[in-house]
Amino acid sequence: MNEAELRKKIRAAVDDARAKNPMAPSVTNTVTQDFVANAQLAVGGSAAMLYLPDECEAIASIAPSVYINMGTALPFYAETLPRMIRALADNKTPWVLDPVGIGMSALRTELLRQMKQFPPTIIRGNASEIIAVARLWNLIDAQAIGNVRGVDSTDEVGSARSAAIILADYIKGAVAVSGPEDLITDGRSIAYSAGGSPLMTKITGGGCSLGGVMAVYLAVTDPFTAAITATAAYNAAGLFAASNTTAPASFKVAFIDALYENSAAIVAENALRLEEV
Amino acid sequence: MNEAELRKKIRAAVDDARAKNPMAPSVTNTVTQDFVANAQLAVGGSAAMLYLPDECEAIASIAPSVYINMGTALPFYAETLPRMIRALADNKTPWVLDPVGIGMSALRTELLRQMKQFPPTIIRGNASEIIAVARLWNLIDAQAIGNVRGVDSTDEVGSARSAAIILADYIKGAVAVSGPEDLITDGRSIAYSAGGSPLMTKITGGGCSLGGVMAVYLAVTDPFTAAITATAAYNAAGLFAASNTTAPASFKVAFIDALYENSAAIVAENALRLEEV
Amino acid sequence: MNEAELRKKIRAAVDDARAKNPMAPSVTNTVTQDFVANAQLAVGGSAAMLYLPDECEAIASIAPSVYINMGTALPFYAETLPRMIRALADNKTPWVLDPVGIGMSALRTELLRQMKQFPPTIIRGNASEIIAVARLWNLIDAQAIGNVRGVDSTDEVGSARSAAIILADYIKGAVAVSGPEDLITDGRSIAYSAGGSPLMTKITGGGCSLGGVMAVYLAVTDPFTAAITATAAYNAAGLFAASNTTAPASFKVAFIDALYENSAAIVAENALRLEEV
Repeated sequence: MNEAELRKKIRAAVDDARAKNPMAPSVTNTVTQDFVANAQLAVGGSAAMLYLPDECEAIASIAPSVYINMGTALPFYAETLPRMIRALADNKTPWVLDPVGIGMSALRTELLRQMKQFPPTIIRGNASEIIAVARLWNLIDAQAIGNVRGVDSTDEVGSARSAAIILADYIKGAVAVSGPEDLITDGRSIAYSAGGSPLMTKITGGGCSLGGVMAVYLAVTDPFTAAITATAAYNAAGLFAASNTTAPASFKVAFIDALYENSAAIVAENALRLEEV
Repeated sequence: MNEAELRKKIRAAVDDARAKNPMAPSVTNTVTQDFVANAQLAVGGSAAMLYLPDECEAIASIAPSVYINMGTALPFYAETLPRMIRALADNKTPWVLDPVGIGMSALRTELLRQMKQFPPTIIRGNASEIIAVARLWNLIDAQAIGNVRGVDSTDEVGSARSAAIILADYIKGAVAVSGPEDLITDGRSIAYSAGGSPLMTKITGGGCSLGGVMAVYLAVTDPFTAAITATAAYNAAGLFAASNTTAPASFKVAFIDALYENSAAIVAENALRLEEV
Repeated sequence: MNEAELRKKIRAAVDDARAKNPMAPSVTNTVTQDFVANAQLAVGGSAAMLYLPDECEAIASIAPSVYINMGTALPFYAETLPRMIRALADNKTPWVLDPVGIGMSALRTELLRQMKQFPPTIIRGNASEIIAVARLWNLIDAQAIGNVRGVDSTDEVGSARSAAIILADYIKGAVAVSGPEDLITDGRSIAYSAGGSPLMTKITGGGCSLGGVMAVYLAVTDPFTAAITATAAYNAAGLFAASNTTAPASFKVAFIDALYENSAAIVAENALRLEEV
């Protein structure tokens, strides 16, 4: 993977999302739906949040890409998600998984376990969540490090490096690990993306909405480029927003505005380094 | 219908909503509830979102008006909505329907079909949704044009003109079709309302919250005036907000602020033209 | 209770929440979750919203404090809440109740009735809600005054004074009554906290998010101090935000920013007077 080539693909993804206005529907948590939808719209996509089994199954066959975020698992997910992930696999529809809250209940664990058989195209999470998925799917030693505290990570990005590579290899897609410097891998190359702001951790839904934006880009490009483009767009917008605000609510407004105003060049030129596995 | 008279009624509706602070409860989608509630408060109303069958049935008999938005249908709507719309009819409580997502699942279709027998007082949607309701209720030819893509319209406002008139006539209320220029009809007259901003399509919940604001005005005036007043308030606020902002998140803040600060005169004098059917 | 001592404890609570970043998970309404979570983050806490019975039961045994807000009761609360409140009692985990919507349905009434046996540590509500809880638990005469209109209070703060004292005494915790001047009592002392802004009633979720912030402080201090600290933080932030904005959406942004920027001294020195019962 050549860096110049990658930056060219990022630039194209930013432009294509705006030109094609892809609808990337979600099953996502009730807390941050507004942020997810507004972030998807800001980068040029369109949003729809769904719950019912039959419509989630149906949308899986017509949407160009889909987002599933486990943040607030609801009782009827027991029917909705198995039907949906099977339909996604049957239709080869690419999709993004945010395994937030992994390990918190029997239902979440069972649903996430089923996703080993019907895998996502991109997995996005913090270090603890990525390690937990790899462990749940028996891709790494069950004794491997990794701790989740509710929705927060207690591990460093670097500690998830090998879990991310193994997972990306297994799903034949991309894995994105959020942290001070973000790590994205397709199992062969690793991209490190920098920028953003500590204020991102002071607003709810930064990670959730990033997953939704990855789903928008996944409708117009390959998984590795989609995950990197969304991450770079977030890092560029966060950096810009933090240069104008110092408190979380005005930061959030400035951040979404910046996502909307990001040029393709700004996203493509955001700090990025590549490493071969 | 005389234009001067209509503007007088709009002015009175804006003032009355602020004076009477009517509570217009909703069954509405989980994505945009915050926006719906804040918009209802901004124009002087009060908000409450509900899900349980018995309380939705009970509120239908005591609220001055109600809002039902189908955006995120949930499994228990199968019990909640039939009981609620029957109670709304029994109590002659006026209500606003936003049929967003029409056609996406068996449950939505069945619930919307039942509303033919227990009809809303105002139906608000984009052109595709309005055509789809008229078709579902067999009021127009099933072959008539009209396409819904998830929550987005793929039809022009003008193409929904006859469906809107037929629907308004059937429900003996008003139908509002959102678009670059909005069309509102009571089946005899058509009001065209202009203003707003393309940025309205870059934030989630513009249409949903407009329906909630129509429900607030419906508590203090007739359906046709309520639908026009809400639309004019949105167009005036959108125009003002767009004069001060160029990106979606700051636009949304400015828009809600403008809804709150709109004088009755500003809403009544917003661009409006009348046409007899 | 000595005023200087109380102000010292408030100052310590503000600092401790920022230092310890306590996670205060919620079962809370779908309308204002974004506001609750962002307010909890702004004061230094962490947020997670949950629905499933088993994970609500599990979190009750590991969280330092919990928040339950009844705003939008959902069908499965019938299983989630009884298991959760029993686990909270078994583990002596302190928790905050916001009984919003009390009396609106059989399920809400039944759930709130059960909380008499497994009582919260803090109850936060408007005057009507506090009176309604005391009446539901047969702690005051069923004929006692008190009216709830949906989510709004129709009673004055002063009229809830005795109900608040009796309730605080019963739960051996604290009761907070919101109003133009807020009343907080532990059954022995009463603290009156002033500040805020009328604009707080023009945005949705002011009360809900205050309850969430009380839960954050409850993780680091005693119930009476936690309730006062959160109320003082809100009053100080509201006062500051209202000095810079005149409309609700920009007020909300400024308010959350101010919550984040509030120094411990500002919160501790906010207008407060003490009275012995």
